[in-house]
Amino acid sequence: MKEIYFDNSSTTVVSPAAAGIVLKVMTEDYGNPSSMHEKGVRAEMYVKEARAKIAKTLRAKENEIYFTSGGSESNNWALIGGALANRRAGNTILTSAFEHPAVSEPLKFLEKEGFSIERIPVDGQGRLDLKVLREKMTEDVILLSFMYVNNEIGAVNPIAAIGKMKTELCPKALFHVDAIQAYGKYRICPKELGIDLLSVSGHKLHGPKGTGFLYKAEQAKLLPLIYGGGQQGGMRSGTENVPGIAGLGVACEEAYTGFEEKISRLKKLRERLAAGLSEIPDVVIHGMPGDEGAPHILNAAFLGVGSEVLLHTLEDRGIYISAGSACSTHKRAGSPTLTAIGAPRTEMESSVRFSFSELNTEEEIDEALAALREVLPMLRRYRRK
Amino acid sequence: MKEIYFDNSSTTVVSPAAAGIVLKVMTEDYGNPSSMHEKGVRAEMYVKEARAKIAKTLRAKENEIYFTSGGSESNNWALIGGALANRRAGNTILTSAFEHPAVSEPLKFLEKEGFSIERIPVDGQGRLDLKVLREKMTEDVILLSFMYVNNEIGAVNPIAAIGKMKTELCPKALFHVDAIQAYGKYRICPKELGIDLLSVSGHKLHGPKGTGFLYKAEQAKLLPLIYGGGQQGGMRSGTENVPGIAGLGVACEEAYTGFEEKISRLKKLRERLAAGLSEIPDVVIHGMPGDEGAPHILNAAFLGVGSEVLLHTLEDRGIYISAGSACSTHKRAGSPTLTAIGAPRTEMESSVRFSFSELNTEEEIDEALAALREVLPMLRRYRRK
Repeated sequence: MKEIYFDNSSTTVVSPAAAGIVLKVMTEDYGNPSSMHEKGVRAEMYVKEARAKIAKTLRAKENEIYFTSGGSESNNWALIGGALANRRAGNTILTSAFEHPAVSEPLKFLEKEGFSIERIPVDGQGRLDLKVLREKMTEDVILLSFMYVNNEIGAVNPIAAIGKMKTELCPKALFHVDAIQAYGKYRICPKELGIDLLSVSGHKLHGPKGTGFLYKAEQAKLLPLIYGGGQQGGMRSGTENVPGIAGLGVACEEAYTGFEEKISRLKKLRERLAAGLSEIPDVVIHGMPGDEGAPHILNAAFLGVGSEVLLHTLEDRGIYISAGSACSTHKRAGSPTLTAIGAPRTEMESSVRFSFSELNTEEEIDEALAALREVLPMLRRYRRK
Repeated sequence: MKEIYFDNSSTTVVSPAAAGIVLKVMTEDYGNPSSMHEKGVRAEMYVKEARAKIAKTLRAKENEIYFTSGGSESNNWALIGGALANRRAGNTILTSAFEHPAVSEPLKFLEKEGFSIERIPVDGQGRLDLKVLREKMTEDVILLSFMYVNNEIGAVNPIAAIGKMKTELCPKALFHVDAIQAYGKYRICPKELGIDLLSVSGHKLHGPKGTGFLYKAEQAKLLPLIYGGGQQGGMRSGTENVPGIAGLGVACEEAYTGFEEKISRLKKLRERLAAGLSEIPDVVIHGMPGDEGAPHILNAAFLGVGSEVLLHTLEDRGIYISAGSACSTHKRAGSPTLTAIGAPRTEMESSVRFSFSELNTEEEIDEALAALREVLPMLRRYRRK
């Protein structure tokens, strides 16, 4: 059976070039970058090359890129390291009401440690309340954390506007952006946007799992999360995951190669799906309409059909989607994003996410729409019994 | 030129079976274990299998194994998470004077946070002062951290004796063991040894870099280091590095396959090298003699020859060794271990480490000895000029 993978915001297949370099480094160039001999030097070259490739995509300096084990580590490091390093300057942290748990959970830890966390609300389409945000930007703020693209509904935060307000109202605070669903989909220049810390994950963009990085503006004050042998300038100790880093570098470079064309293709896929869904009765699309939302995520409620039932029905036809975000399926609680946008219970129970990569095609969208048109009446009848 | 790799305590080549499964998971079974569909279920199977394999090697329960990004993360998590989770019970942490920086550095962080760190001295061969340790085991102790095998000189700590004393004198304290140089070289049963937390790294035993695990006894109280989506029972969030974990599982299983024979081969290699070195004038072997020391590490000072000079001279002949430990080469300061055992400056400046894996042969030892006998007189003459 042909497979249609529409769950790229959960994870992606590793690209052939990235997988190839991972294999080569594991088995041939396996040295420890800290070793003084030539095997160490060669290993370090891979790390340097990856760092250069990534810095270029952000128009950043090479010494502003730190490799981590993934998006969750990057987020935890930025938040915990940022809060602890600046606790003498103030006590308040601003964030949005619909962050990924890799941001909201470390913030809960910091809250227990005595920091004051202010969660700025979003409206029904995921638009941040900038008026409330402005009011909360006081002298006591040491850290702001706002995701670029929401992982569940693809809503996009006004990062440039937040950065500008921050520079004006609380210039000393660190501005952290969780760009895990945005990097590779938007051209991001942290310096221009006033971003001090930016988290990225490798496996969302055809890089290996267990890889990611944190961009840290040169002047940003941050404590390490992982201490030890002094690798990466003492900021992130531990033998570098050289094969993973090499694969990440390749994947990041690929993500920004043929970028405009790729994004316009993703947008077309999303528009085509949205247009098709609008012809099916009782479907509610969440998030921002058209170009306002992210090009690769479409979240929709199929009223009267449980998300899991729809997920497994489509799976039987080789179509893979997500019920809410993969990262929150371990939890019994409702989706944090749909709760934040005030979606009614009926929508929350019937919401699924389609998420695309450049490997998807318009034919796949049409097949998925055909499958939906076929199974929905049946599932809805079943549900009503 | 034929290569002789004697730097296995820095890092090892990934085994063909481990590399093979990493590649397969990256490109075929690339699902996110948190996804509800079959691709997620298949990915989770790899994680479960690896966990089962590893638990078996430690005679532990599967729910006591948590995957991390490597030894440094495991150590930081055990120490910071262990100290923070138990801070109401006391304030003192006991450790040895010659721990790896991945232990000593997070302890310095905890010291700044107000914890009291007591560093137990070691003697000239790396033997822990158990009398001092016993005196320091008070009611205020919440955490003990002692490495199993010292990474620089292969000295072995009396883990069983420490565990026994701890159970008697400060039973509520957590006992953490950094087993990064010991796992795969010793049969370790944490439960029998009274160990609550045990750190292991994948890349020291022919597994992939960027992998490792922390054994945590079921009842041990520990806060997470990385918060988020709730993976691994909420103790270590972040999408699991499925390819890396699968490779780690294979490498751990391999490490304990044909174990006795492998260890006796390693011991023979080390004895053969020690015997050969004893015939070369002005060579001081550090650490414990014979079976007291670890089977795979031999540290020796070649008096009158700088470590780096010797390292590069041997490198020119295809022989790879380490000057001190790879992890501390970023630092200008002297080796923490050689300082702790009170080695004189002349020995510290001329010390190198040979570290073996089961891929090494007796012929390679003989070749290295021949090379040493050839280059040392020359290097020593050069030095005296």
